[in-house]
Amino acid sequence: MRGLLFDGQARVVDLPVPQLGEGDALIRTLAAGVCNTDLEILNGYMDFTGVPGHEFVGVVEHAANEHLIGKRVVGEINCPCGQCRYCQLEMPHHCEHRTVLGIAGRDGAFAEYLALPEKNLHLAPGSIRDDVAVFAEPLAAAFRILEQIEVTDQDRVAVLGDGKLGQLAAQVLWLRTKRLVCIGKHPWKLELLERLHIATALVEEPIDAGFDIVVEATGSDAGIARALELVRPEGTIVLKTTAAEPSRIALSVPVVNEVRILGSRCGPFRPALEALALGNVEVRPMITETYGIEDGVRALERASAPDVMKVLLYM
Amino acid sequence: MRGLLFDGQARVVDLPVPQLGEGDALIRTLAAGVCNTDLEILNGYMDFTGVPGHEFVGVVEHAANEHLIGKRVVGEINCPCGQCRYCQLEMPHHCEHRTVLGIAGRDGAFAEYLALPEKNLHLAPGSIRDDVAVFAEPLAAAFRILEQIEVTDQDRVAVLGDGKLGQLAAQVLWLRTKRLVCIGKHPWKLELLERLHIATALVEEPIDAGFDIVVEATGSDAGIARALELVRPEGTIVLKTTAAEPSRIALSVPVVNEVRILGSRCGPFRPALEALALGNVEVRPMITETYGIEDGVRALERASAPDVMKVLLYM
Repeated sequence: MRGLLFDGQARVVDLPVPQLGEGDALIRTLAAGVCNTDLEILNGYMDFTGVPGHEFVGVVEHAANEHLIGKRVVGEINCPCGQCRYCQLEMPHHCEHRTVLGIAGRDGAFAEYLALPEKNLHLAPGSIRDDVAVFAEPLAAAFRILEQIEVTDQDRVAVLGDGKLGQLAAQVLWLRTKRLVCIGKHPWKLELLERLHIATALVEEPIDAGFDIVVEATGSDAGIARALELVRPEGTIVLKTTAAEPSRIALSVPVVNEVRILGSRCGPFRPALEALALGNVEVRPMITETYGIEDGVRALERASAPDVMKVLLYM
Repeated sequence: MRGLLFDGQARVVDLPVPQLGEGDALIRTLAAGVCNTDLEILNGYMDFTGVPGHEFVGVVEHAANEHLIGKRVVGEINCPCGQCRYCQLEMPHHCEHRTVLGIAGRDGAFAEYLALPEKNLHLAPGSIRDDVAVFAEPLAAAFRILEQIEVTDQDRVAVLGDGKLGQLAAQVLWLRTKRLVCIGKHPWKLELLERLHIATALVEEPIDAGFDIVVEATGSDAGIARALELVRPEGTIVLKTTAAEPSRIALSVPVVNEVRILGSRCGPFRPALEALALGNVEVRPMITETYGIEDGVRALERASAPDVMKVLLYM
């Protein structure tokens, strides 16, 4: 099969179809999305080598559960061992021995086939197109915030970053409170949210601080510093981005202001698929470029360009 | 009056007795404790100039409430405006216009007299000596942790740092769970906790990770990195120390592990005074040196030495 291999450099090569572990299904990839985590992996994050890619929609070709065969699915990316203390504590996302699709110990979705445990799969509702279904995984990560903290319609929320994850987080939190602003650097990206009647601001615009919740989705030191400025005392900063490089933070600020800083990673697929099926969030305008897998290297290069948001790969 | 003045350098000088603002009492200082925050102030933290010192016991000499006059008191250090949004939200510690005794906008306790609002004062129980009463403020800061998070007897807790604040935090959390270890660098400091039957470990000793709660009381980048190693996924790190310098942190760790990082500052005096009066915590063994105010500069120099813990100043 064709796939994009990263082993210090990225290239499209001919690869063997993935071996199935116990409980795995074999999935023929239809489309995959490029995430910033993929770009961080190319920078050395997680020391990953293999096939990256963890946002996908595909068709089950082989599975022990024959009801799955031929079905269009999306999939949760963490593959737990089922045995360790965190698995026993019902925290499978934090399994000590987990593999993670296209991120840690398991080849990912930038290839014609991928292997993933059957129990990780969710049927993609028939009403959503392939290019929408691909957003199930990052949208689930945005819904994770609502699992972790209570958000009421009285809460003032700032989302820092107008990129893919920032926009998804803004749309999800906007379902709970209209007292929300997304702050970014790119007028054309913010325009996508404005069309949905979500308030936006450019980073250089002055803004009244004292937000109850600030979602940091820039992954930059400047973003974290801004989050610390904008959050109210005893407020919450949600960190949504992973970067290979350490950050420099003036920790006396969150100590004096008794801020809660909360890491947030993967989330629940069910509300994400529901929101996509009902049209409660809008994702297609974020897609700026699509490529065939044969142009995978070019796709990854383009995904980090300032004039690009979501890049999709078709197999 | 004699007092220790810091205006870029520290020296003991003759100063006017503090002017009283509305609601202020005049307190004759009996004794004051040197805190690491004082040492950070000498390094430029908070850009403070004036009389530092915020841990004290004293006698009220002047007050509108005549019942207070002649009483021995300790005092909360944050002086709120009563008008701003955080005061209106009953978060006076986070008042936007607050002054803080010996830390921000208000002269402190390293002098023969200090001024503090009457409503900040608490009577020092007669059963506790001056050198014990001085610990009310830092012990209240340790009790703040119990206001912010639930700690059960099933929780595994690590306290990083065997200094003054680390030891107070360890003693307070040990009231809730015996599954606690204090990790430090100094055998002679850890010995103080061992005598109280609190488990300790040296930083170089291997230790089983997966703590539910880690209290960071070293204020060092190494301490924060260790906290991130030791805390379990979805566990809590409490940051108790303020430093002038920014820290370098690999934020991908708390994001991937969905760690909660919680800043923690000043706390409730009532449980602190109760614990001191009942002897539920032991503070006097931490006092290693005492000085008269005339030797205040020497006292501050000694307070940062590795063979010193709490330094007291007597007026």
